[in-house]
Amino acid sequence: MGNKPIFIVAGVGNASGTGAAAAKVFAQAGYRTALIARDATALEKLASQLTDAHAFPIKDYSVQSIHDVFAAIRKQWPEDQGHEIRAALWNTGAAVWKPFLEITDEEVKEGLDINIAAAFAFSRNIILEFKKNSLNEIGKRGTLIFTGATASIRGNVTTSSFAAGKFGLRALSQSLAKEFGKQNIHVAHAIIDGVILTGRQRDRHDEDWAKNADVRLDPESIAKSYLFLANQDRSALTWELDLRPAHEKW
Amino acid sequence: MGNKPIFIVAGVGNASGTGAAAAKVFAQAGYRTALIARDATALEKLASQLTDAHAFPIKDYSVQSIHDVFAAIRKQWPEDQGHEIRAALWNTGAAVWKPFLEITDEEVKEGLDINIAAAFAFSRNIILEFKKNSLNEIGKRGTLIFTGATASIRGNVTTSSFAAGKFGLRALSQSLAKEFGKQNIHVAHAIIDGVILTGRQRDRHDEDWAKNADVRLDPESIAKSYLFLANQDRSALTWELDLRPAHEKW
Amino acid sequence: MGNKPIFIVAGVGNASGTGAAAAKVFAQAGYRTALIARDATALEKLASQLTDAHAFPIKDYSVQSIHDVFAAIRKQWPEDQGHEIRAALWNTGAAVWKPFLEITDEEVKEGLDINIAAAFAFSRNIILEFKKNSLNEIGKRGTLIFTGATASIRGNVTTSSFAAGKFGLRALSQSLAKEFGKQNIHVAHAIIDGVILTGRQRDRHDEDWAKNADVRLDPESIAKSYLFLANQDRSALTWELDLRPAHEKW
Amino acid sequence: MGNKPIFIVAGVGNASGTGAAAAKVFAQAGYRTALIARDATALEKLASQLTDAHAFPIKDYSVQSIHDVFAAIRKQWPEDQGHEIRAALWNTGAAVWKPFLEITDEEVKEGLDINIAAAFAFSRNIILEFKKNSLNEIGKRGTLIFTGATASIRGNVTTSSFAAGKFGLRALSQSLAKEFGKQNIHVAHAIIDGVILTGRQRDRHDEDWAKNADVRLDPESIAKSYLFLANQDRSALTWELDLRPAHEKW
Repeated sequence: MGNKPIFIVAGVGNASGTGAAAAKVFAQAGYRTALIARDATALEKLASQLTDAHAFPIKDYSVQSIHDVFAAIRKQWPEDQGHEIRAALWNTGAAVWKPFLEITDEEVKEGLDINIAAAFAFSRNIILEFKKNSLNEIGKRGTLIFTGATASIRGNVTTSSFAAGKFGLRALSQSLAKEFGKQNIHVAHAIIDGVILTGRQRDRHDEDWAKNADVRLDPESIAKSYLFLANQDRSALTWELDLRPAHEKW
Repeated sequence: MGNKPIFIVAGVGNASGTGAAAAKVFAQAGYRTALIARDATALEKLASQLTDAHAFPIKDYSVQSIHDVFAAIRKQWPEDQGHEIRAALWNTGAAVWKPFLEITDEEVKEGLDINIAAAFAFSRNIILEFKKNSLNEIGKRGTLIFTGATASIRGNVTTSSFAAGKFGLRALSQSLAKEFGKQNIHVAHAIIDGVILTGRQRDRHDEDWAKNADVRLDPESIAKSYLFLANQDRSALTWELDLRPAHEKW
Repeated sequence: MGNKPIFIVAGVGNASGTGAAAAKVFAQAGYRTALIARDATALEKLASQLTDAHAFPIKDYSVQSIHDVFAAIRKQWPEDQGHEIRAALWNTGAAVWKPFLEITDEEVKEGLDINIAAAFAFSRNIILEFKKNSLNEIGKRGTLIFTGATASIRGNVTTSSFAAGKFGLRALSQSLAKEFGKQNIHVAHAIIDGVILTGRQRDRHDEDWAKNADVRLDPESIAKSYLFLANQDRSALTWELDLRPAHEKW
Repeated sequence: MGNKPIFIVAGVGNASGTGAAAAKVFAQAGYRTALIARDATALEKLASQLTDAHAFPIKDYSVQSIHDVFAAIRKQWPEDQGHEIRAALWNTGAAVWKPFLEITDEEVKEGLDINIAAAFAFSRNIILEFKKNSLNEIGKRGTLIFTGATASIRGNVTTSSFAAGKFGLRALSQSLAKEFGKQNIHVAHAIIDGVILTGRQRDRHDEDWAKNADVRLDPESIAKSYLFLANQDRSALTWELDLRPAHEKW
């Protein structure tokens, strides 16, 4: 018999969006979940609502914090007790929409740090964990999913910094998919091409918007797509899919 | 209470590949299935193995034959008896790999007829059917899926004719997705980037290849991805995803 | 000493657009020009204005007409008199913008015939001609250019038929570029992402629009880009470039 | 009468590649050239060979160094003496090809710093300069060109870090093209899809390779494409083109 597989999600935010929904969906599917975000209160609350979940708050998405959080996860669920990390979601990033000339050098740097450098560190830890696993019943060692955006494939007038980060993240995910597919590690990238019904977006829109599933993405619907990716067997893996509401103009 | 929804699959071939697998997977998920191919014997045999399936053999994939087969489907399962067509798969096409100068005018024309013109006719019939439906419990009138290939996004030295057809099909699917998304009709395109374990490919390869799920796609695994697309709710629809075996070089 | 190289342009239309401008620009650069279109009057008039130009009117852009026009060109400028075809432009196509359900089967077929099948026939003749040539001073046997459009890379709500044709044409051009690059035949594709200042567009817009070079493309500017492509040497060939006015939203 | 326009090229390296070739080609076309690289000796030597060229060595491609070098350029050619910066080339970057797990956090960070953050700083300075200019005779305030690579559009097994940088740079260039096109500032991106005949590559290959223009890119041929971009008028601007040798497999 074995332990439940571990799902790590980085980018739970205030626990009202995609990261939290993914945690719930994967928890229901039988995963132990490691929740990572800066908001410890929201994390703890979410962890308390899920079975076999644990909060791993971090002070920032620096490379060092990423490395530290993996040490903490392994302390909680040691490898020598048979705990295996089998799925992971990178769901964070700095989304700055500003005219190019208003973006400061510091904002550019911060954007690159969180959108790309931190994702490299996260990926490194995840890949090293996945490599320890044997093949599961669907022929994989693990699934690593990245949340992308419209800006992952299109630069636009106020997205120079955000798009640079998201293009870079997409490059990372494609490189990893090609390099580690040969080791039965599945790396996928989801282009979220629309507004997600998070707590923050609820506050920005009226109630009609929130109720209208044709115009915004349900976090849970995204999460189900992520679980689908994790459940794909070795013979037919998706690197990239797009997700948008039915009425989205694109 | 209602009738089972109908799933139409065009391109069942000799019933050993993606089309047949999709029929099985959708049948298991509760769909009545309409099977379209030129091989009547294979069709009938497949139909006999599935619950609520019916074979609709056609003599060719001409535009007229496509229109005729929809009339036949509607005669079998009349609209006024509450039968609703809710999902469809276009899974056929002429795959000619030849140096450009060896391709004849006639082959070019035939390729366009089946790869694009027939798909337009199929889409027209499907869209007209979907428009009659009310929204189902996941907010959709129907899901139309197209099977694409590596040649859908990359022309290559022996694929001028095939790629022209597959690029054109992809354009159709994207145009439909944008035009009919507003009417809660879901149109999706799958890029199959590898060799599928069909009967014909089994004959071309040795047994080790067939057994090695890392190097070829299982038709059933593709079919599960198609069912996933059909099950996506209105808030998070995928237009395009790619599928390839874990060890595929790409 | 040698004859002037021949430049063939298909799609001169009423001689007010890109095809005519390309003829002028290539004529000024020292090419003999073969002008192909359905409007014989406009063709003859343009031919009379250029040095060493000849009109080759065709009744339609059917595959047969394409083959016939090459015979006519070779009768005018025989191979055994040292005439070499060194550059060609495919600049025609059927641009139908219509809601999907309003497009008839016949329109789909016509669109494929002219947008793709005729282009295959044109390419076949051109490639066969180019293969006869020795390398010129920039290491090429010839340059074949295709005029694409926004619809070459993006399907949209009223462009299903047009985009299918233009995607298909792009696939052809990429396949040819890869297959015949090895024989020093240069194949290129230009994405015209905006409205061109043709006679017809002048009639549709007001005078301010025509005067404002920020919002529409000059045919001559496009033509200069085509000449640039023809002049690229073997070490650095472009397959694809986009062209749009400075103020275009994209 | 006016001063010669200034062309700034960042990434001259050891003056044997694209940057140096661009300097020569633009100098011949009547530009004053500002040469930026870390190798002061090579820079000075190149400057001495060109008319109206000046070397601006920098110690690194940090954001601060980029800002400083613009101050130095303006000190050399002051704005109040009528000197206008009209063209610029960003031709540098860190090309690390390594298996993912061998790349250190530091290498990731350095890659992002030079491939993206420095390019943002360079762009910021250039855009601010261009905005001061009136429209020139072809309707532009200036042209900013970025040198991309195969890794700009495709991640691969050893290119995670390089591709992340190059994807990000491409996003920047597209965002700038869209935002500043409206101000008649032309931003372009060239995908160099092959090996360039630089001094370093000469050392790595045999003489046959160097002599064979079918298999590697001439820096001067690339430079001519860059001058072509700078000479495009406002009605037909290219954002992106690819460049590869005739025999390149792609």
